[in-house]
Amino acid sequence: MRIVLDASGGDYAPQATVAGAVAAARASGDQIILVGKEDEIRAELARHDTSGLDLPVVHAPDIIEMTEHPAQAIRRKPHSSVVVGLRLVREGAADAFVSTGHSGATMAGALFILGRIKGIERPCLATRFPTATGWTLLVDAGATTDCKPSYLVQFAQMGAVYARQAMQVANPRVGLLANGEEANKGDKLVQETHALLAEHQGVNFVGNVEPKDMLVNNAADVVVADGFVGNLALKFSEAVVKLLTTALGDNLRKRALPRTVAGLAPLVLTAALPGKGRARALLAGLAGAALPLTVVLPALLDIKRRMDYRVYGGAPLLGVNGVAIVAHGKSDALAVQNAIAQAHRAVEERLVATISNMVEIVDFVPSA
Amino acid sequence: MRIVLDASGGDYAPQATVAGAVAAARASGDQIILVGKEDEIRAELARHDTSGLDLPVVHAPDIIEMTEHPAQAIRRKPHSSVVVGLRLVREGAADAFVSTGHSGATMAGALFILGRIKGIERPCLATRFPTATGWTLLVDAGATTDCKPSYLVQFAQMGAVYARQAMQVANPRVGLLANGEEANKGDKLVQETHALLAEHQGVNFVGNVEPKDMLVNNAADVVVADGFVGNLALKFSEAVVKLLTTALGDNLRKRALPRTVAGLAPLVLTAALPGKGRARALLAGLAGAALPLTVVLPALLDIKRRMDYRVYGGAPLLGVNGVAIVAHGKSDALAVQNAIAQAHRAVEERLVATISNMVEIVDFVPSA
Repeated sequence: MRIVLDASGGDYAPQATVAGAVAAARASGDQIILVGKEDEIRAELARHDTSGLDLPVVHAPDIIEMTEHPAQAIRRKPHSSVVVGLRLVREGAADAFVSTGHSGATMAGALFILGRIKGIERPCLATRFPTATGWTLLVDAGATTDCKPSYLVQFAQMGAVYARQAMQVANPRVGLLANGEEANKGDKLVQETHALLAEHQGVNFVGNVEPKDMLVNNAADVVVADGFVGNLALKFSEAVVKLLTTALGDNLRKRALPRTVAGLAPLVLTAALPGKGRARALLAGLAGAALPLTVVLPALLDIKRRMDYRVYGGAPLLGVNGVAIVAHGKSDALAVQNAIAQAHRAVEERLVATISNMVEIVDFVPSA
Repeated sequence: MRIVLDASGGDYAPQATVAGAVAAARASGDQIILVGKEDEIRAELARHDTSGLDLPVVHAPDIIEMTEHPAQAIRRKPHSSVVVGLRLVREGAADAFVSTGHSGATMAGALFILGRIKGIERPCLATRFPTATGWTLLVDAGATTDCKPSYLVQFAQMGAVYARQAMQVANPRVGLLANGEEANKGDKLVQETHALLAEHQGVNFVGNVEPKDMLVNNAADVVVADGFVGNLALKFSEAVVKLLTTALGDNLRKRALPRTVAGLAPLVLTAALPGKGRARALLAGLAGAALPLTVVLPALLDIKRRMDYRVYGGAPLLGVNGVAIVAHGKSDALAVQNAIAQAHRAVEERLVATISNMVEIVDFVPSA
């Protein structure tokens, strides 16, 4: 299999991208085509053992900056790594495209260069969202805003295909993101989509899901939303985690000293006052102080890791005529490797063909 | 001042509502009119010392259930506490209305019975949202969905008035909730509203705010959103807090035992082995174990309290022709008292007249 990696995209390129590509090529035997600034990529490759690996480099001198408008950048920069890489897929020289660069540009490029699967109205980005018991697949996480109900029905169908194929969920439960369970909750888009999905046989629709149902009660395997709403939901979740950790840090910093002094008092009284066994008591006190940290700290770290997008690799753009994986800009080498593995699975499972067949089989609701 | 309280609404009525009313009457000397099931309210009042307090009871036999459709319930139940209470305000027999009952019904009732302030297109619910450094005022938190840009401009203006008057922010910074700072981010509604607010002199517009800017970086005093989006944001924040605490609890439950055993080992080694000073070392060990808890636990509890909506009282419905405060269904007596105090301030500061004057002064953008 031949997978294109945008080696110059992302916050830690080319170090993380090249290291991820080397690891992926070693693990799978795939050809990983590195697109980007050739000098930099070759210099980085030289730092790895690449013997026996198939890692061709394709030069693409331009970089799309984070401040650029996605669609304009794609048109203005034909020699950017995103455009050059996606063209390799369109021309049949590669099977999939992975980027940790400008996600808007990757999505716009995939839509313009690969085109849509026949019958699909708009693409959607499918992102794994951590929940209390595992994960749920959010579609759309930010590819298409100002959706019509018919778009959301297709997002539901494509999300179900991906959950079934790539994530091994036998009969994925599809929920519609809303601010209440009742069918009359949400805005007009949600209400109309609810009515369509309720009568639609193509997906296992479980009704509206509230944020609490989605994150805590594991109510759905696939959660459908407009791209603006889905993207905001993603960013709200990240922000609340950040808020809580910041608030905890601030609180500890401000009040740790008086509290530590107060907490030390009984320890000092029992361990440091003159008498026999002082050294032993002091040691026991320290061992005691370590005890709650042994229990609580790993629990906090476990959760931090679970909320970390990087272990999830990337998000496939569903509905375009090819495999395109959008990975986080802060992806490290492991995340890049995971994203490449995700692309490998999508090609192997014939994701595009399955979505295309689904369009022919399911009786689609026309746009409102 | 005369403030109507829906004494039969909310999860903890009539205990919490009556207790909150008694405390509010005692603190302010206001007349608090208790509307709801008379027998129950009088029985509850008998449990308090009400000497010298002005606490009339107005009988309203019907309750609007949480499962009922707001607008339909208002039409079908003219003898409900919400309808009877709001009528007292409309007829001039009271100055403000406070409810911890069905929030949708309270909003629908306030809109139908009090009507809109002349010139205001739609009302909005203004909710305090906890942030890393304090709070921000979210408008709209769920009163109006499927907004037009002109509605959001009015939400911005009304939110700024409330922040200035009731919350003592001299020149409130108004931000527009979006998934990116750039003016081209968001859906069409956000983009068009951004353009209107950018040229509008009535408010101190600071541009788009991302969730991170809003919650962590204290980027705006007032944050403007469509009611569906704002309500979802509120519920996402609550859900993420719940997710993190649930995940922490699960993790501790599953792994606490082996970790405690592992953590106990050094303590046992130093304190419990035979030799002199065992009792003292054991005491020191226990004192040591309490030390991190003394520092970390209060910090966790502080944050939990800051994220607790109850201390914030209630949310005013801005744009209706009267003071109406929507308080949380889980409000305890303190939260009810706070919501009544909020109503008192809004009347005192002449909130409705100020919004009404603003409509006359500011050159409004017509609906798109």
